[in-house]
Amino acid sequence: MDAPLTVDSMTATLAANTLTGQMIIAGTPVSGTGEQVRGFDPSAGKSLEPVYQHGDASHVETACAAAADAFAAYRATTSEQRATFLEAIATNIEAISEALIARAVAESGLPLPRITGEVGRTTGQLRLFAGVLREGSWNGARIDTALPDRTPLPRPDIRQRFIPLGPVAVFGASNFPLAFSVAGGDTASALAAGCPVVVKGHDAHPGTSELVARAISDAVRQSGLPAGTFSLLFGSGPDLGITLVTDPRIKAVGFTGSRSGGLALVAAAAARPEPIPVYAEMSSINPVFLLDGALATRGDDLGRAFVGSLTMGSGQFCTNPGLVIAVDSPGLDAFIVAAREALSAAPATPMLTPNIARSYASGVDALTGSADLVGRGEGPTGETSCRAALFATDAPSFLNSEVLQAEVFGSSSLIVRCTDSDEMHAVAEGIEGQLTATVHADDSDVDEAGRLLPLLELKAGRILFDGWPTGVEVCHAMVHGGPFPATSDSRSTSVGARAIERFLRPVAYQSVPKSLLPSAIADGNPENLWRRIDGQLTQD
Amino acid sequence: MDAPLTVDSMTATLAANTLTGQMIIAGTPVSGTGEQVRGFDPSAGKSLEPVYQHGDASHVETACAAAADAFAAYRATTSEQRATFLEAIATNIEAISEALIARAVAESGLPLPRITGEVGRTTGQLRLFAGVLREGSWNGARIDTALPDRTPLPRPDIRQRFIPLGPVAVFGASNFPLAFSVAGGDTASALAAGCPVVVKGHDAHPGTSELVARAISDAVRQSGLPAGTFSLLFGSGPDLGITLVTDPRIKAVGFTGSRSGGLALVAAAAARPEPIPVYAEMSSINPVFLLDGALATRGDDLGRAFVGSLTMGSGQFCTNPGLVIAVDSPGLDAFIVAAREALSAAPATPMLTPNIARSYASGVDALTGSADLVGRGEGPTGETSCRAALFATDAPSFLNSEVLQAEVFGSSSLIVRCTDSDEMHAVAEGIEGQLTATVHADDSDVDEAGRLLPLLELKAGRILFDGWPTGVEVCHAMVHGGPFPATSDSRSTSVGARAIERFLRPVAYQSVPKSLLPSAIADGNPENLWRRIDGQLTQD
Repeated sequence: MDAPLTVDSMTATLAANTLTGQMIIAGTPVSGTGEQVRGFDPSAGKSLEPVYQHGDASHVETACAAAADAFAAYRATTSEQRATFLEAIATNIEAISEALIARAVAESGLPLPRITGEVGRTTGQLRLFAGVLREGSWNGARIDTALPDRTPLPRPDIRQRFIPLGPVAVFGASNFPLAFSVAGGDTASALAAGCPVVVKGHDAHPGTSELVARAISDAVRQSGLPAGTFSLLFGSGPDLGITLVTDPRIKAVGFTGSRSGGLALVAAAAARPEPIPVYAEMSSINPVFLLDGALATRGDDLGRAFVGSLTMGSGQFCTNPGLVIAVDSPGLDAFIVAAREALSAAPATPMLTPNIARSYASGVDALTGSADLVGRGEGPTGETSCRAALFATDAPSFLNSEVLQAEVFGSSSLIVRCTDSDEMHAVAEGIEGQLTATVHADDSDVDEAGRLLPLLELKAGRILFDGWPTGVEVCHAMVHGGPFPATSDSRSTSVGARAIERFLRPVAYQSVPKSLLPSAIADGNPENLWRRIDGQLTQD
Repeated sequence: MDAPLTVDSMTATLAANTLTGQMIIAGTPVSGTGEQVRGFDPSAGKSLEPVYQHGDASHVETACAAAADAFAAYRATTSEQRATFLEAIATNIEAISEALIARAVAESGLPLPRITGEVGRTTGQLRLFAGVLREGSWNGARIDTALPDRTPLPRPDIRQRFIPLGPVAVFGASNFPLAFSVAGGDTASALAAGCPVVVKGHDAHPGTSELVARAISDAVRQSGLPAGTFSLLFGSGPDLGITLVTDPRIKAVGFTGSRSGGLALVAAAAARPEPIPVYAEMSSINPVFLLDGALATRGDDLGRAFVGSLTMGSGQFCTNPGLVIAVDSPGLDAFIVAAREALSAAPATPMLTPNIARSYASGVDALTGSADLVGRGEGPTGETSCRAALFATDAPSFLNSEVLQAEVFGSSSLIVRCTDSDEMHAVAEGIEGQLTATVHADDSDVDEAGRLLPLLELKAGRILFDGWPTGVEVCHAMVHGGPFPATSDSRSTSVGARAIERFLRPVAYQSVPKSLLPSAIADGNPENLWRRIDGQLTQD
C-alpha cells in the first residue's frame, strides 16, 4: 500500500486512445474467444471499433480464482486504505474523462450533458463510499461487556462486527454506462465492503467498460492491492453470466437490468449447493399520483413537467414515470391536454441499442391495442429512435390487464383515470412493488395524501412529493430498491450509503483474546468509531 | 391501547389448568380438522392429554387474513406501545410459569432447571426487544437536508426509516419449546418490528404451545391491539407449513429446525409469485479446535468439560459441539482418555421425541461404520434415550466423507486427528458454514490462533475462545447465524438485538410535507432518536 496514488497520466491518456478490445483479468489484458461484439453508435447508426470478444468458462475460472486469492489480503486492508483506493479510481476516471465521455456518448446515444453528469455521479459514488469507510459505522461494532459475577451464569465478553461476504459478481447495466456499470454503485459498494469484484460488462458499451476497467486496474496497482481485486469480463448473460454466478467462489451478485435477466440470476444463485444473495434491480413503472387540488391549480404545468421527466434520456431510467393515476376532473383534462401538446413537440431520441428500440416498439404496440392513445412524440428519425408515447385507460381495465401493468422500457406512460378516491386506492393496492411512488399534492390534498402514504410505503422503496422520480440522489438516506419485482431483495438499496450493507455479514467474537481482536472492536476504540456498548451508542 | 396492562391472573391460571387442545386464531380458540397429535412425555414414555388436531388450508386462510387486516393498525403503534405489549407477554408467561414449566418438562423430557432457565430466557428476549424499541435505533432514521442552492441541480430533502415487512410466519422448533417456539426469538423480534405473527407450533409440545399462545393472545387483548396480530396453528410442515409460507399475505419466515425442512421452506418461498425472505437456522456441527498449548497444559480438563457440553440436554442444541479438531499429541491423547472416561459415566437421557431418538440412533450407526468409536455413554433406559457417542477419524477420511461431515442431532461428536497444523487448516477450510467455531488456546498458541481466526470468520457466525458453544447469550452483540447451511441467510442473526432487522426494510421519503412525515424522521426529533443527519450520527 506504499505506492504513491498520483495518476499515471501517460498511461491514462494512452488507454483512452488505444482501446485494445480485451477483457482485463486480475490486471492482465486478455482476449476473448467467443462471439464478436462491437460498440454501436445509435445516433450515427454505425458500429464502432475495436472488436471485442466474449470470454468463456476458462476466463471465469481465472477471474474467480484471482478474486478468491485476493480476498484475504484485500479484506485485511484498513478502511483508510480502501477509501484511498476508491478515491484513486475516481481520480483515474477523471484523468481520462474527455476520452471516456466521448466514447460513452458514442456507445449510448445519450446526450453529452447527461454522460458528463454521469461521470460526476460515478466518481461521487466512489467518494461517498470513501467517506462511509472513514466514518466507520459500516463496521457495526458492538460490545457487550463481561459480567463475571452474574448469577446463575456469568456473561462472557461478546463483541460483533461486520465482515465482507467474499468475491462479488457485478453485472453492468445498459442504461447507465458509467454509474451502474464497471465502476458503478455495485462495484463501489462491494469494493468498499472489502469484496473483490468480477464485472460482466454490458455489450452495449464495451469501449466505455474497457476504459473504466483500466482506471480501476491502475488504481489496484497504484494502491499495492492484489491484482485479483478486480476483473472485467465480457460474455452473454445466459452463458458466461450464469457460469460466473454459479462459481463457488462468488458470494454475492449485483445486477441492474431486465426482470427476466434478474430472475434468471436469482434462480441460478438459489440452485447453487451454497445459495448466495442476489441484489437484482429489475422492473418498476413508478406510479405518479396526481391529487385533486394539485391538478386543479396546476394541471397544465404538471402535464408539461411530466413529459420532461418521461422523455429524458429516451425514458431509459429505472425510475421513468410509466404510470399516472388520478381521479377524473377538469384538472386532469388540463394535464392531459398539456402533456399531449408537450409530447407532440418532443423530438425522437436515440435509444441505447437496436434491441432496446425494438422492445420499446413492441411494448408500445401492445399498449396501443389495449389502451387509448393520448399522444405521441415526433416521428422517428432512425432505426433506434424512441418516439415517446402516452396512453390512457380506466381503473378496472388496468387492474385486469397484465399488459397494462407491464414495464415498457423507454418513454412510454399510461394514465389511469379513476372515478373516485376509492378507485385510486384500489389501483395503488393492485400494483406490484416499485422503486418509487410519486405524489403531487396541494395543501388541500393533505388528508388524501395522508391516507395514500401508508399504502405507498408498502409498495415502493422511495416516496416523493411534488417532483419526478427520475434523478436518484446519491446520499446517505437514499433508497433505490423496493418490494418485488422492483428488486429481488427489498431489504436493501443499490444507491446510497446503505448499499455497502449488501455485502457484509455480522460475526460475533466471544471471549476472544485481546491481542487477537479486530481493531474495530478492540478495547480503547483505536478507530474512534461509534460503537454500541452494552446497548448504548458511544464513541468512547 | 387504553386497557390497563395488569395480568389477568384468573384467566392465566385457568389457562394453565384447562388445556383445550385448540389452535388460537386471531384470539379465538379453533379446533383442527386433521391428524390427531398429542404431547408425549419421553421420560415416562406415555402420551399426554388433551388431543390436538392439525389445521387445514381454511385455518391458514383465516389466520393470514386476520394478520393482513391487523397489519396497518399494528404497524402504526408506537415503539412504546409495542414495548409495553412485549412486556405484557412476558408478564403473562411468568404468571403461568409453574404450570407452563411442568407441561414443557413433560413434553420435552428436558430437565426442570433447563426449562426454568428457558422461561427466563424467553421473557428476557421479549424484554430485550422492548428495550431495543425504546432505544429507537431500529428505525434507522437518516436525514439528508435539502441543498436548494446546489449547482447544477438542487438537492431535495431526503429522509429514510425502516418499516416492517408485513405478516411473518414462525415455525416453532422442537428443541427449545419456549425460547425458539411460540413466543421465542423469531416471534419476539417480528412483533417488535411491527409484523403480525402466525406461528406453526411444533407437534412435539402442543400443550406448551397452547399455554404460551394464550399468554400472547391475552396480551394482544389487554393491549387493545387487533386480534389478528397473533395466531397459533398446528399442522404438518409439508402440508400446512407450505400453505402458510406460500400465502401471499405472508412477507417473511422464521424457522429453526432440520436442513431438509428449512430448505423446503426456502424453495417454497422462492417459488412464490412474490418471493419472500426465509430465515432458516438449519444445520451446524460447531467445530472445536484444540490447540497444542491448551492440550498440553489441560488436555484432560478439556476432555471432561467437552463431555459436559456434548451431553447437556441430550445434545439437542443447534450449537452442540459435533466436531473436535486437533493435531496429534500426548495432550490430545489425554483429552481423549478423559473424554472417554467422562462419557462412560454419562447417563442416558431422554430425547425430545421418539422420531428424534430414531434419527439419532441411525446417525450414530452411520458414524460407527465410518469412524473409530472412542466411547459411549451409559446404556439406554428407554426407547427415546440418548446414549452419547464419541468417534475419531483422521483428516483425509473426514474431508472425503459426507457421512462424517453430516450433523447428528444429539450427543454425538467426532474427533478429527490431524498430523500437523496445515492439515488442521485444511479441515477448517473443508467444512461447511457453521453457527459457531470454538478455539481452545493457551498463551503459547496465540500465533496459531491468529492464523486460524480469519479462516473461522468465513465459516461461522460466532467465534468463541476457551468455552463451549452451547449456551447462546441473548444480548446486543450476539450472532446466532452463519454461512449456509448453518442458516439460509448469513446476513442475519436469530438471537440478539439485531434479529429485529430481519423483518424491516428501508423506505426513503423525498420532499414529503412535514405534516406527513413519520415521527422517527420528523423535524425536531420528537422521539429523541440517534439519527444520521447529512452522514453524521446525532441525537439533535
